[in-house]
Amino acid sequence: MRLSRYFLPTLREDPSEAETVSHKLLLRAGMIRKVASGVYNFLPLGLKALKNIENIVRQEMNRAGALEVLLPLVQPAELWLETGRWNAYGKELLRFKDRKEHDFCLGPTHEEVITDLVRRDVKSYRQLPLILYQIAPKFRDEIRPRFGLMRAREFIMKDAYSFDADYEGLDKSYQLMYETYNRIFSACGLKFKAVRAHTGAIGGDVSHEFMVLAETGEDTIAVCPKCGFAENVEIAPAISSEVYEPEPYRPIEKVYTPNVRSAKDVADYLGLPLKKITKTLIYIVEEKEPVAICVRGDHEVNEVKLEKVLGGKPFRMATEEEVLKIVGAHPGFIGPKGLKMKVIVDRSLVNFPNFVIGANKDEYHYVNANLNDTFVPDLVADVRKAVEGDLCPECGELLTFMKGIEVGHIFKLGTKYSEPMKATFLDKDGTEKPFIMGCYGIGVSRVLSATIEQNHDENGIIFPWPIAPFKVGIISFKPDFQEKAEKLYQELSERVDTLIDDRDERPGVKFKDLDLIGVPLQVIYGKSFEETGKVEIKIRRTGERVYLPEEEARTFVLSFGEKQGEESL
Amino acid sequence: MRLSRYFLPTLREDPSEAETVSHKLLLRAGMIRKVASGVYNFLPLGLKALKNIENIVRQEMNRAGALEVLLPLVQPAELWLETGRWNAYGKELLRFKDRKEHDFCLGPTHEEVITDLVRRDVKSYRQLPLILYQIAPKFRDEIRPRFGLMRAREFIMKDAYSFDADYEGLDKSYQLMYETYNRIFSACGLKFKAVRAHTGAIGGDVSHEFMVLAETGEDTIAVCPKCGFAENVEIAPAISSEVYEPEPYRPIEKVYTPNVRSAKDVADYLGLPLKKITKTLIYIVEEKEPVAICVRGDHEVNEVKLEKVLGGKPFRMATEEEVLKIVGAHPGFIGPKGLKMKVIVDRSLVNFPNFVIGANKDEYHYVNANLNDTFVPDLVADVRKAVEGDLCPECGELLTFMKGIEVGHIFKLGTKYSEPMKATFLDKDGTEKPFIMGCYGIGVSRVLSATIEQNHDENGIIFPWPIAPFKVGIISFKPDFQEKAEKLYQELSERVDTLIDDRDERPGVKFKDLDLIGVPLQVIYGKSFEETGKVEIKIRRTGERVYLPEEEARTFVLSFGEKQGEESL
Repeated sequence: MRLSRYFLPTLREDPSEAETVSHKLLLRAGMIRKVASGVYNFLPLGLKALKNIENIVRQEMNRAGALEVLLPLVQPAELWLETGRWNAYGKELLRFKDRKEHDFCLGPTHEEVITDLVRRDVKSYRQLPLILYQIAPKFRDEIRPRFGLMRAREFIMKDAYSFDADYEGLDKSYQLMYETYNRIFSACGLKFKAVRAHTGAIGGDVSHEFMVLAETGEDTIAVCPKCGFAENVEIAPAISSEVYEPEPYRPIEKVYTPNVRSAKDVADYLGLPLKKITKTLIYIVEEKEPVAICVRGDHEVNEVKLEKVLGGKPFRMATEEEVLKIVGAHPGFIGPKGLKMKVIVDRSLVNFPNFVIGANKDEYHYVNANLNDTFVPDLVADVRKAVEGDLCPECGELLTFMKGIEVGHIFKLGTKYSEPMKATFLDKDGTEKPFIMGCYGIGVSRVLSATIEQNHDENGIIFPWPIAPFKVGIISFKPDFQEKAEKLYQELSERVDTLIDDRDERPGVKFKDLDLIGVPLQVIYGKSFEETGKVEIKIRRTGERVYLPEEEARTFVLSFGEKQGEESL
Repeated sequence: MRLSRYFLPTLREDPSEAETVSHKLLLRAGMIRKVASGVYNFLPLGLKALKNIENIVRQEMNRAGALEVLLPLVQPAELWLETGRWNAYGKELLRFKDRKEHDFCLGPTHEEVITDLVRRDVKSYRQLPLILYQIAPKFRDEIRPRFGLMRAREFIMKDAYSFDADYEGLDKSYQLMYETYNRIFSACGLKFKAVRAHTGAIGGDVSHEFMVLAETGEDTIAVCPKCGFAENVEIAPAISSEVYEPEPYRPIEKVYTPNVRSAKDVADYLGLPLKKITKTLIYIVEEKEPVAICVRGDHEVNEVKLEKVLGGKPFRMATEEEVLKIVGAHPGFIGPKGLKMKVIVDRSLVNFPNFVIGANKDEYHYVNANLNDTFVPDLVADVRKAVEGDLCPECGELLTFMKGIEVGHIFKLGTKYSEPMKATFLDKDGTEKPFIMGCYGIGVSRVLSATIEQNHDENGIIFPWPIAPFKVGIISFKPDFQEKAEKLYQELSERVDTLIDDRDERPGVKFKDLDLIGVPLQVIYGKSFEETGKVEIKIRRTGERVYLPEEEARTFVLSFGEKQGEESL
């Protein structure tokens, strides 16, 4: 591509609308533009990167024997009523009426549509297993669309659905997709980790997330450096590595703690370590029953675990007003002693001597509280988030933490959709059975954001070779070299996506743009070529520069690409 | 692809939901399934054909220097308010509110979004010309979705938009797209015709439609066999080749014509040729003014021409009740004599002697009416549809008619969108000027339907090679030959999309399915192979059979494909 004929509106300044690195760079590199909140145009460069990801996904899905289909974005309410999700899904499901007043929605996911398709056209176990997938736009009416493509409302997703005759079949399909996802993200040239995860709104028993590792990731992953255990902290068991030194119980004492609400403030005020100051949080279960959760000051309540402990009932944190009304004191001064409600304490409080609790009276705490002495909880359970230094639940090694961005999620669904939709097939034994399903998603446009979060520096994007929209950029300083640059451009273009910057711009502008848009290799006809007849090749990722005669430069570029391809596989 | 692992639910019977050939065959061949009225799933075979069309479109658009983008389906009302189309577009524009009660619509077309993108990021004439395109889903809330993919609500479209500094630039971009469209439909292997057409709701001055020729087409094209003139009958000038023999005016006479309302019935009743019985139709202009249009009995009023004659004012045909109230007689008995409204007659009535008109009294007509004698019209104009045998307006040859399906439409828009949206650039002379735009659409999913309308027989689809999802199908009759069939399958699969029917089915079922899904070449390991060692190759389109040794068969298949590719370019 000749840059003079390309549409590449790069920006020198960070746009004010963007907070995250990837959002800023996608805008600055002229890859996307906002149309409305969470709705974007893909410009030619952005689309080219997106298509590279799509093609890797497609290739690996096809290799796994999955079959590509295309399902509509506009879906009739009838199907969603069958599974009950029409009412259950919440406001992310954008509902509307057509001109004939029939109810429709924009598909945030396609379990209903695909189950309907399969129940009509797959009748026999002989047609199984079947994995269908699509790469298509989806719409989720997020309450807070943000971070560009990271949490957009309209976005591109690869969603796949497996149909098996039994659970052993599902296990095989799931394993096949697990391996396929590993191949996909490797082929993209990304550093990533597959972790066990919470099943959330899609449902089912087992699920894994695929996380692109990046310091800016919103998700935290607990990883065991020894046995390879990896789980989202949303579900990772919290097993403390700390053994409490036994202490004699000291007498409990109510102390005046004016204007100190946070555990940190209380700790400072009392001159005690943060962990000694326990926090008691009030939740409202099913909009009626208050429940108190008690954790150490240096721990956080894990609401995914809490949901399990509460038997899956809906719950929410009580408002300040509710706490005041129910307990008679403000949040910050709440404690388990004398509370007239169910009290659940985290298991890290077992054998924890002489800790601090709120006194259920404003401006007061108790010091020297002890479990089963000061108060008796209704339940001791794992309700906190794991922290770095906790023990691996599989091998007992100390866990380390990583930050990640979820780009893929795979689920075992079982009969969650096939049963309510009466999607059945005739099995070997002559009986009608519901399909055993799995579903497998990749946020294709999100992969682009995650790639940039993982691969960038102060000058811009550093695309991994497989995703890079252009692999090579050619710049010529002097009109004299233009013809030679042009010849190399023609030769390389036949083999790899090559950009030649033939604009009437200063070299500085051209270098800045090539750096910004993350072209892996820059071939420069400049000073070195004038002086030595060797072109300069800059490797974007390392900043390394190589000087080679033209013919060798051509070979270098092509073999660099092959090497990158191999490494990523 | 092994058919045993493919998802190809073919049907033996015509589904009741389908009326047209392509709709029936798309369903029977397991290519699409209905989700809701005008909303379809593409199954693997259908998507594969669709992708073949998409790729041809993409290749030719890229060759023309157009740049691919991806614009959102969900569009904010603000942009549509700027051009006035938010209110003007009618109910095909599906409008809805998001969770924050902001107005959005589903994009039926993308002029607003693309103009907004370009006005923000293209500032100078140096960045022009620019042609951007996308291949993406669109939604139009059709009042009567029908004929499967032919008139669907959610469908796949290629839409392109050109931006030029002046009208000469637009002419060049338009010409480039005109040629590109010719290349695209040739490359698809389709018989088609580019015709001048009405600009309709998109607007602008000049437009051409690309019609796939098919007897079942809804559009009629007037074609000159001599000079190549081709226009949609919607706009083709009607120049009669008939020279009226002069006759003396006979005295006008009111005759009793009971129960004969249609021109045909009146002609039979009076024993006169159909053309002698003129029809007078009442239209209501701007919901207030009635206007009478008078044409020969064998002609039809052309409402596109009428719109021009009426100065672009909105109009509609009067209801039976309105006619009765205004004229005092029922439709069928209306005539221009004594009518108290504007009367427009088609120019074919000039010098037309002694014709019949309604008497504006139920059950009565006048015979022997003559223009400017019996009545004086307000206007004589070309308001009828051209008919076969009319004269070519360019060279005077007799026109012939063809039936076609519109699959592409290109428009010169000028400043229709750039002016109201204030989309300007800085021109050479230092002044701000609005972009001069063109727009260019291809109904990609409709091309699939049109292909089938043009290419089928009683056994199913006959895909042109470039669009065929599978180019070759291999069938082996006997288990003994399976290994050889398998070997050929492996070899061919490396070069062309090949299907092997390895299902446990009777040969008859396999032949029927290969015929139905339109595979161009069928390679059969059957009787001839057993007896002579030669495989049988059946050419789907001609039914021709060739018998060749295996190695030659392989060469035959590959060179057949190359030949097809050449022919279509």
